[in-house]
Amino acid sequence: MGDAFEPGVRAAARCGILRRAPFSETGDGLTRRFLTPAYRATLDQTGAWMEAAGMTVRLDAAANLVGRYDGDAPGRAALVFGSHMDSVRNGGAYDGPLGVLLAVDCVEALRRAGRRFPFAIEVVAFGDEEGSRFPASMGCSRAFAGGADPAMLALADAAGTTLAEAYRAFGLDPDRVADAARGPGEVLGFIEPHIEQGPVLEAAGLAVGVVTAIAAQRRIRVRWTGRASHAGTTPMHLRRDPLAAAAEAMGLVERHCRGGTRGLVGTVGQISVQPGAFNVIPGAATFALDVRAETDAACDSAVAALLAGFHAIGAARSIGVEIERVQSLAAAPCDPALTACLARAVRGVTGDCLALPSGAGHDAMVLSALCPTTMLFIRCRDGLSHHPDEFVADEDAAVAARVLLAFLESYEGPHAP
Amino acid sequence: MGDAFEPGVRAAARCGILRRAPFSETGDGLTRRFLTPAYRATLDQTGAWMEAAGMTVRLDAAANLVGRYDGDAPGRAALVFGSHMDSVRNGGAYDGPLGVLLAVDCVEALRRAGRRFPFAIEVVAFGDEEGSRFPASMGCSRAFAGGADPAMLALADAAGTTLAEAYRAFGLDPDRVADAARGPGEVLGFIEPHIEQGPVLEAAGLAVGVVTAIAAQRRIRVRWTGRASHAGTTPMHLRRDPLAAAAEAMGLVERHCRGGTRGLVGTVGQISVQPGAFNVIPGAATFALDVRAETDAACDSAVAALLAGFHAIGAARSIGVEIERVQSLAAAPCDPALTACLARAVRGVTGDCLALPSGAGHDAMVLSALCPTTMLFIRCRDGLSHHPDEFVADEDAAVAARVLLAFLESYEGPHAP
Repeated sequence: MGDAFEPGVRAAARCGILRRAPFSETGDGLTRRFLTPAYRATLDQTGAWMEAAGMTVRLDAAANLVGRYDGDAPGRAALVFGSHMDSVRNGGAYDGPLGVLLAVDCVEALRRAGRRFPFAIEVVAFGDEEGSRFPASMGCSRAFAGGADPAMLALADAAGTTLAEAYRAFGLDPDRVADAARGPGEVLGFIEPHIEQGPVLEAAGLAVGVVTAIAAQRRIRVRWTGRASHAGTTPMHLRRDPLAAAAEAMGLVERHCRGGTRGLVGTVGQISVQPGAFNVIPGAATFALDVRAETDAACDSAVAALLAGFHAIGAARSIGVEIERVQSLAAAPCDPALTACLARAVRGVTGDCLALPSGAGHDAMVLSALCPTTMLFIRCRDGLSHHPDEFVADEDAAVAARVLLAFLESYEGPHAP
Repeated sequence: MGDAFEPGVRAAARCGILRRAPFSETGDGLTRRFLTPAYRATLDQTGAWMEAAGMTVRLDAAANLVGRYDGDAPGRAALVFGSHMDSVRNGGAYDGPLGVLLAVDCVEALRRAGRRFPFAIEVVAFGDEEGSRFPASMGCSRAFAGGADPAMLALADAAGTTLAEAYRAFGLDPDRVADAARGPGEVLGFIEPHIEQGPVLEAAGLAVGVVTAIAAQRRIRVRWTGRASHAGTTPMHLRRDPLAAAAEAMGLVERHCRGGTRGLVGTVGQISVQPGAFNVIPGAATFALDVRAETDAACDSAVAALLAGFHAIGAARSIGVEIERVQSLAAAPCDPALTACLARAVRGVTGDCLALPSGAGHDAMVLSALCPTTMLFIRCRDGLSHHPDEFVADEDAAVAARVLLAFLESYEGPHAP
């Protein structure tokens, strides 16, 4: 390795190593579910890399791997970097691990330079961000932040193994997961480097960007009811076609969100009709609407406007409109001071800085209960993620590492402006 | 019965009788599939009613029940009235049988009055118009018209019984189905009285109407392909959302057909998206489009306009558009002279006559290969058909019988203007 070491480039290469057996359960895309043998192998390898970089390494009670690089004196509070090591089924190599391994590279660069700060650096590899094994997610970062939920232990995977049993088989006591909690005084802040999983940075021609907030999200199911009738014998003006109403409503979603601000997006990702025959005007149509925006206010305002529009469309067509609010996730704003510090580092390295909301959830959202948090987004090709073709260029990973190192040099503590 | 006999009213009542066991396979809606025991019981009962009305009755080689009321001399060519006795699953009582039983009532009225014409009257109960048992339909009327298709005999029902085996179990020789063919010289014309199965007569406040043509029909499957991506991380302006394109296209179908003429209707009755998740912008959307119009030219012109519009929508959105032409059924115009004669009878009885295309297929379409054909539509409540709540009012059935009797009195042969 020696002279060829370039922080970030090596992290990207290591993501490639971790994509294959024994670190993946499958051979094509990466599948690494929490607490599986592939997961164990990955933590072992990552721990070895952490130690080689100059960190002391431990597995905490929730199966988080924690590497620590002390500050200029023992026992300093830590600035924590981290992301997750689990993957979706048949996913990509960079979603999660790149954030952990970028931080490992930065620590190695600091150790080589003999650089220590008046704070410690910790690198944490969280476990179950994707929720691809058990039907819940982010239990590891929750435990780290002091919010362990014992109810999760009873959840079973597809094979019937509970989370508690999986912890035991991994050599951990499920009744002690809450011991992973860190005291607020120990942690100065949390920075999660992560691939963007979207096309914004690529479209802007930028390697990295800072995240202003993890978006608010509302999930709504809309059922449109009309009158099923014969496609051949019912003239257009005598129809009550719920799919035609739904089509008009989808046009409204697109128009309204295109004209919106603050990261507003609206998506219809599922639709079905009954009875669903070539020659029958549907009697009912149901679609699933996902709305996100940077703030809860922006999200709620968009939802209110869309639902009012849906009811107007239904009234004009004598079509019933039933609204089911399936899920509401509050926005998680990033810490303004920490984000501003990270943005200065980005500008220092690249000359420019794009601030964008994250439309997807991340461990950083959970860590905000413990400490100031922010995220660094790294460009991925075609905005593609959760796919075997997910890709981050070496140069972009190198930029990200330079940004993190510049950030560490300029960081002045949790109360800096 | 005696003095209470009112042609049409009794036919409607008999439809109610045939709706229950032993004439239906199910207890709620009517289910009477071709060549089942319920079907046998129905033919036995209908044959008895035909004989009581004064007809000689026979089962032809294709299982069509044929009642004959001779003209003023033996061996006269016949004017044929008929419809089908099979039903969809869980259907209504009037779809098919009403047409047969109206004709039986008319013959009984003629017999009671001692009225004979210079032509015979035949009433035919066809068998498999709905195709609800074997995966093909109208084999009975095809055989009657001289177009028996031996390939149909190998088709199997859901239980694995072939049509040939079902014919044998019914006491008929499947190899002789073609013997049901009638010579052109034997048949002067065919008139099918049938419920409208649509809302047009009801909206116009009319009991009956004449049919100008059985509509041309085109079935087209359209597949829209874009780029599946994360609903949260993909801004509106960077999406290639095939469902949004499909929604715009459905709006175009509705607008174009609303503005159309000659019975133009366009319906999207099926739609699906892939992958179909709340938080994923679809990568592909497929819908089924059914377009009908009174003439082939009107239908083709509408389809051409719609497909041009679809391609324009796809091009503007960078969405792929794949067109699959699934089925094309030519329009079957009713015989102008026969239809005009029937329309005069309608005007004579009701003072008004609405002429409308039939958006659904009927045996009359098949019979047009043998002789001049036309149809009399009878109003049904709410335009509802293929449903247990299908309903025809006694008064409307009585009007239909009076129209048929008036038509018989004024009919002047196949070459009348």
